[in-house]
Amino acid sequence: MDLNKLLKARSLAVVGASEKSGFGGDTCRNILEYRKDLSRVYFVNPGRDTVLGRKCYKSLSEIDDEIELAIICTSQATVCGLLREAKTKGCGGAVVFASGYSETGDEKGKEAEEELKTLAKELDIAVLGPNCGGFNNYVDDVISFAFPVEKRDRKGSIGFISQSGQFCINLMDSGDMRFSYAISIGNGKIVTLEDYLDFLVEDENTTVIAIYMEGVQDAEHFADCLKRAAEKRKPIVIQKGGRSEKGGKIAASHTGALAGTDRAYDAVFDKFGVIRADDMQELMSTALLLSTLKKLPAKAAFASMNISGGETGICADMGSSFGIYYPDFEEETLKKLRSMLPSFCTPGNPLDMTAALCYDSDLYAEGLKTVMDDPNIEMVLIGITIQLVVSDPTIYNIYNGVKKVVEQGYTKPIAILPFIEGTRNQDVAEKFREIGVPILPSPKYAFSALSHLSKYIAYDCTKRELSLAVPHKKAGGRKKALSEVKSKQMLKESGIPLELGVIVTSREEVLAQAENVTFPVVMKIESDDILHKSDVGGVVLNIRNEKEAVSAYETILENVKNRAPDAKINGVLMQNMMPQGTELILGVKRDAQFGPMLLAGLGGVFVEVFGDSSLYPIPLNKEEARRMLEALKSYKMLKGCRGTKARDIDAVVEMMVSVSDFAEAHKDELCELDINPLFVYEEGQGTGVADALVVLEE
Amino acid sequence: MDLNKLLKARSLAVVGASEKSGFGGDTCRNILEYRKDLSRVYFVNPGRDTVLGRKCYKSLSEIDDEIELAIICTSQATVCGLLREAKTKGCGGAVVFASGYSETGDEKGKEAEEELKTLAKELDIAVLGPNCGGFNNYVDDVISFAFPVEKRDRKGSIGFISQSGQFCINLMDSGDMRFSYAISIGNGKIVTLEDYLDFLVEDENTTVIAIYMEGVQDAEHFADCLKRAAEKRKPIVIQKGGRSEKGGKIAASHTGALAGTDRAYDAVFDKFGVIRADDMQELMSTALLLSTLKKLPAKAAFASMNISGGETGICADMGSSFGIYYPDFEEETLKKLRSMLPSFCTPGNPLDMTAALCYDSDLYAEGLKTVMDDPNIEMVLIGITIQLVVSDPTIYNIYNGVKKVVEQGYTKPIAILPFIEGTRNQDVAEKFREIGVPILPSPKYAFSALSHLSKYIAYDCTKRELSLAVPHKKAGGRKKALSEVKSKQMLKESGIPLELGVIVTSREEVLAQAENVTFPVVMKIESDDILHKSDVGGVVLNIRNEKEAVSAYETILENVKNRAPDAKINGVLMQNMMPQGTELILGVKRDAQFGPMLLAGLGGVFVEVFGDSSLYPIPLNKEEARRMLEALKSYKMLKGCRGTKARDIDAVVEMMVSVSDFAEAHKDELCELDINPLFVYEEGQGTGVADALVVLEE
Repeated sequence: MDLNKLLKARSLAVVGASEKSGFGGDTCRNILEYRKDLSRVYFVNPGRDTVLGRKCYKSLSEIDDEIELAIICTSQATVCGLLREAKTKGCGGAVVFASGYSETGDEKGKEAEEELKTLAKELDIAVLGPNCGGFNNYVDDVISFAFPVEKRDRKGSIGFISQSGQFCINLMDSGDMRFSYAISIGNGKIVTLEDYLDFLVEDENTTVIAIYMEGVQDAEHFADCLKRAAEKRKPIVIQKGGRSEKGGKIAASHTGALAGTDRAYDAVFDKFGVIRADDMQELMSTALLLSTLKKLPAKAAFASMNISGGETGICADMGSSFGIYYPDFEEETLKKLRSMLPSFCTPGNPLDMTAALCYDSDLYAEGLKTVMDDPNIEMVLIGITIQLVVSDPTIYNIYNGVKKVVEQGYTKPIAILPFIEGTRNQDVAEKFREIGVPILPSPKYAFSALSHLSKYIAYDCTKRELSLAVPHKKAGGRKKALSEVKSKQMLKESGIPLELGVIVTSREEVLAQAENVTFPVVMKIESDDILHKSDVGGVVLNIRNEKEAVSAYETILENVKNRAPDAKINGVLMQNMMPQGTELILGVKRDAQFGPMLLAGLGGVFVEVFGDSSLYPIPLNKEEARRMLEALKSYKMLKGCRGTKARDIDAVVEMMVSVSDFAEAHKDELCELDINPLFVYEEGQGTGVADALVVLEE
Repeated sequence: MDLNKLLKARSLAVVGASEKSGFGGDTCRNILEYRKDLSRVYFVNPGRDTVLGRKCYKSLSEIDDEIELAIICTSQATVCGLLREAKTKGCGGAVVFASGYSETGDEKGKEAEEELKTLAKELDIAVLGPNCGGFNNYVDDVISFAFPVEKRDRKGSIGFISQSGQFCINLMDSGDMRFSYAISIGNGKIVTLEDYLDFLVEDENTTVIAIYMEGVQDAEHFADCLKRAAEKRKPIVIQKGGRSEKGGKIAASHTGALAGTDRAYDAVFDKFGVIRADDMQELMSTALLLSTLKKLPAKAAFASMNISGGETGICADMGSSFGIYYPDFEEETLKKLRSMLPSFCTPGNPLDMTAALCYDSDLYAEGLKTVMDDPNIEMVLIGITIQLVVSDPTIYNIYNGVKKVVEQGYTKPIAILPFIEGTRNQDVAEKFREIGVPILPSPKYAFSALSHLSKYIAYDCTKRELSLAVPHKKAGGRKKALSEVKSKQMLKESGIPLELGVIVTSREEVLAQAENVTFPVVMKIESDDILHKSDVGGVVLNIRNEKEAVSAYETILENVKNRAPDAKINGVLMQNMMPQGTELILGVKRDAQFGPMLLAGLGGVFVEVFGDSSLYPIPLNKEEARRMLEALKSYKMLKGCRGTKARDIDAVVEMMVSVSDFAEAHKDELCELDINPLFVYEEGQGTGVADALVVLEE
């Protein structure tokens, strides 16, 4: 779908133009207030001759111009007719504010939306909405937003897509925000969130994409957009509701989007280097930081410069808790700083400069240059609180010092870090913005944004498998668990190294096979119908000879006969008893939207009591597998701790990639896979699959 | 020390009054700008006849009035002489801005401060500073603050003590802050932080105490103040630097305060119900929330009411991550809400009201009352972003709705929760403040403050032992580790239940004792000089009979002879082999300031790999001990999980209290205590001390 006639329309008509408050009136007022060139703007209302002093047409047809964009402010019943009429005027984009569609949750609403969707497709009109707040294209001055906001210049390079109109209003009302586009997508099932994202990924005027989302429509299209953004190094910041159980329900009921599990979203965002924000303010601050800096620092290595010990302490403590890296200064830097600062100062990073250098902008510039000359430093954070009313002249001295340094050609990025929240003095903020220095929000948001920046810089898309194994078959078929042997066979055929063992179905076979195995062995009931073999007395461990093997065989069959009389029995599995290693759990869970995800964690209490596991989208490569393990709190146990030797992590990584390949190949039918436990031995000794379960969906 | 003549002075003189910027000039300007009654304010400067249009005296002596407070703006060299002169005028309080004292870190500075301290004591003058920013008493209009801040009414009920002048400036510059007192204490070694805290705890005009601190001078006085505040239910909010390693160093070097370990501060704050803030903004927002509400909610049970799905989702997700409790509404409440809201709304808590009720303040009031009538709800959070410029008329409808509800006698507390940071429109903020409704800061700070409020409400000081075992003897003596038997004996004499075992010093004694013990036994080398018995081959487990016992005896002695030839050997300890239980570690660590702290955690990987341990100040009672265990992530292992039975938690709790009693009784000499492992058996089966180590300091 071509969004140019919608988002970059060269001519537009407001249908339902009005002077009253409401969609028609507010849209007209916003256009008149914000748009400079009104030559190809038309107001339409059969009941009026003029609206807000401007000519008003009786109908679209009456207008003697091509109308690329129709902004439909009238009620649901009029929409389809108006679209048909608009088409005759060359319309390719429309905004539909009306509600009463799928958001009602009832059949009537869903049908109305389906009808609208079909018509839009038939007419080839890109429809924003329904049930939306409109959009503003600040680059080309295309205004269709329907809510009143404070008058202010908002042009910048953040492309914002929102599944909530209220979010758009909040961001527009914030003095700091600078957009290329702000789009309130409403129900978003005709032109989807993925379509807008696609547009912004390719749009040259957009350097950062910010999204408030409740869910996606087309996971494959979504992943493709994320891939291209990652390859272009265009940051995407997303706030997605639903981290908590209650939040998930609210997101689902609000737009009725099909929600993947929240953890799956985290995993997908991790893969594609998407930044996830916890709330609107974090979304905005992070996007602003990324879009205001003239270039991102080469490495996330910060210097923190402050004018009091208390503030320096906050930067140290908060920086530490948000993972901000403050490298130590070179001895050369420390020496210079010592010569500038009062004798009682002990320079370090974070640096308490005291107020000493702030009385003179030249002195301040010298201090700043000294810090910037340090080869370990890539970005400088200047701690100073700028409030609405600036009572402290220090701020101007610092500004002048910073300006001098920038003008002398220093290019390492700088940001201002205030300690108290507030609207910043706009004169001061604008001065800093002009020289490429953003003013961060209050510390919790500032350090969140800096932490996101740090991770974004470290993200390297060439190390990632930039795709998802989205299933093409719809989920919902009958689920079928395979027996242990069948599960293992399936895995083995896909190249996953494991020992199968043999199935015995009589005393005689037990005795015959006893010559082929190495005692001790383990014997387990083999049946598609029995998932929990121990629970029915279907497992005997540590069988030392053929006599014990025969006895175990009989015990198992007897137990199962009593406790699971209806199970169809394939026989008894007999396999070498594996030496005990560190227990790992490897699993594949299928996410309804994003397809199979690999789960890894240490066995025993770690996954179950501490919830210590990693989840990551399939397919994955070795580096991604290794990162999954490194992300475990219990990774120390694999690396070796408390006197134990390191485990064979390379072998685990290979196993993980094999499992990923297996799951990708079977993405349409694989419902669940569990390798539990996977024994991991000392370095060079490999792994052993002790048990496996595959569940398929027909 | 009586602080009334300092902080509540009825007459004051500024010595070094001036018109220039700097201490003298800025203090004079601040007094003229803020203080209403200037009748007993005197400016002193031998070189001037007037200052800022007001008579200027040549000296203090020339003034024909009693001078309770001398504000000394002149340099260090003049201070002592001026104090002596001030004393002749009846002076009881002084502010000393001059620097060059202990903050320089050199001997000269320390001596100067010591001299000042001695003189202040001799003259009985309460000296604020040196190296401070002064103070403001907003209740009685006593102004001595030396830095320029924006002119504004700041009178409220938060008493603020700060070890950083810059913090005072930042808080004063924030539009929201309302103080009873704001005190920049400077070096704080003459009148100490504890003295100011004591004053504010007793001060009737102060309802909430906020502190920025780097360390305390007198831990016992500090604890006594915290105790009285807890008993009065006067909240104390503290921001203390030094959570991180770098932050700790900065705090220590800034004021040179003796810093207890950061974890010890957390533990002490926990005991006394002190709220700890991470930064200035959190300190301020939390204090403001607590001081603005007319009464605190009876229970931390919140309703969240919002006007969009996205915002409702943020409240759900952030609330969940900050531990905010949103009870479900009663069916009756849901029914009423359903009848008020559009059909597509699914009411719940958090509640998405949509914009439906916001067009009419009566409707909004009905919605709010419906929520407030719900018996599960004790406080309401109204989510709406109020920025500097209010463009959304909804805000006034909501305000009018809230006002109606408050005027109708609804008393459950209400707060406004904005989603974007900023300076709030002061008209709107003042309107809400007048009806006792605070406007919270942006969500990360708002939910931090609400989380602090929740914990504060739940804190019950009657369940705590409100004292610390602060040692009276200075640390630093020679440390001496006791052998296992001596350690156990010392514990046993204090009533801690454990088995001592017997010491054998010959083959014959082994044989003789073999009749008194129950095999299997364990034998261990017994020596004051060997702390790590296993490392020298000094332990043999699982000895099954007297023959093995004799052999073990000989092996142990032989090993020790080879590997620790210089150790003085008391013999070999022989004791019953304890049955294996869940392994716990109980320890006592001595904090340099706050005295002994109890440490508890599960053995094995839990403390060492996951760092999962609780630390709490001694003395403690059973409820406090139980809370320590409940705070462990691995508490699940004690409660029983994965099919295991619950452990004997009551016995562990009793053991913890006994250890606390022991440590309190030996607070002056006990350096360290380790019971590791302490075996914990199934419920009703008690505990077993397997090994113990006491380290004393002479």
